[in-house]
Amino acid sequence: MTMGRLTVLSFLIVCGFLLWTVPATAAEPALQIKKIGGYYVGGKEVVLSGLPVVEKSFTQGGPIRKVDPNGEFEAGQMYVQFVQLAKPKAKYPLLLWHGGGLSGSTWENTPDGREGWQMFFLRQGHDVYVSDAVERGRASWARFPEINSSDPIFRSKLEAWEGFRIGPKYSADKTKREAFPGTQFPTEAFDQFTKQSIPRWVTSDPMTQAAYNTYIASFTKGSVPLVHSQAGNFAIQAALANRQNVKALVLIEPSGTPNPEKTDLTPLKDLPQLFIWGDNIDKSPSWTAYNANVRKYYEALKKMDAPVTWIDLPAMGIKGNSHMIYMDKNSDQVAKIVQDWLTKQGLMQPAKK
Amino acid sequence: MTMGRLTVLSFLIVCGFLLWTVPATAAEPALQIKKIGGYYVGGKEVVLSGLPVVEKSFTQGGPIRKVDPNGEFEAGQMYVQFVQLAKPKAKYPLLLWHGGGLSGSTWENTPDGREGWQMFFLRQGHDVYVSDAVERGRASWARFPEINSSDPIFRSKLEAWEGFRIGPKYSADKTKREAFPGTQFPTEAFDQFTKQSIPRWVTSDPMTQAAYNTYIASFTKGSVPLVHSQAGNFAIQAALANRQNVKALVLIEPSGTPNPEKTDLTPLKDLPQLFIWGDNIDKSPSWTAYNANVRKYYEALKKMDAPVTWIDLPAMGIKGNSHMIYMDKNSDQVAKIVQDWLTKQGLMQPAKK
Repeated sequence: MTMGRLTVLSFLIVCGFLLWTVPATAAEPALQIKKIGGYYVGGKEVVLSGLPVVEKSFTQGGPIRKVDPNGEFEAGQMYVQFVQLAKPKAKYPLLLWHGGGLSGSTWENTPDGREGWQMFFLRQGHDVYVSDAVERGRASWARFPEINSSDPIFRSKLEAWEGFRIGPKYSADKTKREAFPGTQFPTEAFDQFTKQSIPRWVTSDPMTQAAYNTYIASFTKGSVPLVHSQAGNFAIQAALANRQNVKALVLIEPSGTPNPEKTDLTPLKDLPQLFIWGDNIDKSPSWTAYNANVRKYYEALKKMDAPVTWIDLPAMGIKGNSHMIYMDKNSDQVAKIVQDWLTKQGLMQPAKK
Repeated sequence: MTMGRLTVLSFLIVCGFLLWTVPATAAEPALQIKKIGGYYVGGKEVVLSGLPVVEKSFTQGGPIRKVDPNGEFEAGQMYVQFVQLAKPKAKYPLLLWHGGGLSGSTWENTPDGREGWQMFFLRQGHDVYVSDAVERGRASWARFPEINSSDPIFRSKLEAWEGFRIGPKYSADKTKREAFPGTQFPTEAFDQFTKQSIPRWVTSDPMTQAAYNTYIASFTKGSVPLVHSQAGNFAIQAALANRQNVKALVLIEPSGTPNPEKTDLTPLKDLPQLFIWGDNIDKSPSWTAYNANVRKYYEALKKMDAPVTWIDLPAMGIKGNSHMIYMDKNSDQVAKIVQDWLTKQGLMQPAKK
């Protein structure tokens, strides 16, 4: 009997070793995809007039062409890319919305080359829609100051390092950057990550919100936005505007919400909402403030007995997450928490018997 | 016997009718996908200094924050998105490169909602890589005039309508736009199409070329760029820079090529190259000139007995194509011509017996 147990134990150890040595990707079965595509939604025609015609060469040393900046243009649209599964296991499409100064590319591979949340949730059986908000990425951007009233801002590496809580101190010298002890951010890929940065305007929120509302209005059979940072407030506002089209919200470190003292939150009283927060928030004055504001919104919903869930990762023993949770080294671990919550909310199809 | 033939004929007619009435999408089998992802390639760190700090509110009526535009930034990178099949039938990945003032989104659904060339070639068995060139879409763009020396230009609807040979006369009044007789462009979706427009710089070609070269350098096992318009010259230059990594080039209405009188084209003498041209080129002075220039490049290669193929669609009876061939109503018909040519070049795996 003892030998038998040892044999079983040895067998399990060998199995475990084999599983551990086989690359994860090799073990993944092929995804059955119905369709991949993309489209634009929202926006409208704007007319520019009275601007001076300029002369430009379109190739180095090439002939000079006159360029008339006047005329009709589209502005305020957003871009959507979808991957639809042949047999989705989720009841509704999962919509991934990026944060400030980024585009939808942020949900694909992590900067250090691992699979991002787009693939994670496809493998879990969700149709996944990744969008670029107005002015970001493939959504394109409109002329300023004629259409966007202000000029854009660009996020420096310092702002990304410190603002995203990768570490307390950035340095232009890569060897002198200080990360938080035990950070989950793949710091070796930090410079690669900053290639994702997209300029943003601070005056375009109403245009962005309008496009997100139009986008959500198209999901008449329901959707589940999973959103990051700046997109938190956009998603909650879109849910208020088209409540029946939103079946749940996953808010990854939202930087804002509607003001609970000035907003009627009653329509959200039965909307499942999940809030997830990383580590070292107390070391960042701005994130301490954002977190406290979002907490007020959460408490107001809690008071209504709304199905809201607040997850503080360090409090449950998961330490070191930056603001960029979905690209941190434990991104799959956190994605699993999100997936378990979605399952618990009844958002997956019942398993076939 | 006669009855027998009629029966067979009736059967075929019924089959044909059924095939015709079943929506094409419903008939398509699921795609077996190994992986979907994205990444950035090329670019480098740039340092900005001496710019004045500005004050901005990040939300309407919100607190004023100081924004320091100085520091380190990444610039000159491009963005790549890939769909890898579980069992590709093509020997090499197919790389789709967009033209001027557009991004990779142009290869997805057509503006009137049909499947674009990304899906067409996935269904044909190619791993498909769609990129956004430097400064376009998710590749992001760098501050001007500090990094990009000039200011960007925006394509008006007039420029798109007339420049892309949709018709001889644009009007701001949609009901008064003149299309070429029998145009294949889905004119009802023209305004939707212009939502794809991305500003461009006319001084950034060297930065764009550098990123494309780095991109092609990564395909050490070979690749087949399929490129449109402005990307024609970038692709040929990239092939000259990394000849062994490029197995064929598909050039859809390239707007330029290296000058055959000033360039050693010998490295390209065994590179299969396909040129495809739409209709009404003689009605556009600029396209007449582009076409004539590209023809010189083609003739120079032809003289070397290079495996070059020049397809003038109207000359083979396919009329009405605009410059946007891959979104014209007969886009699948032209894609099939490309696929047949790729097969003929030996670029598909031999069929299993």
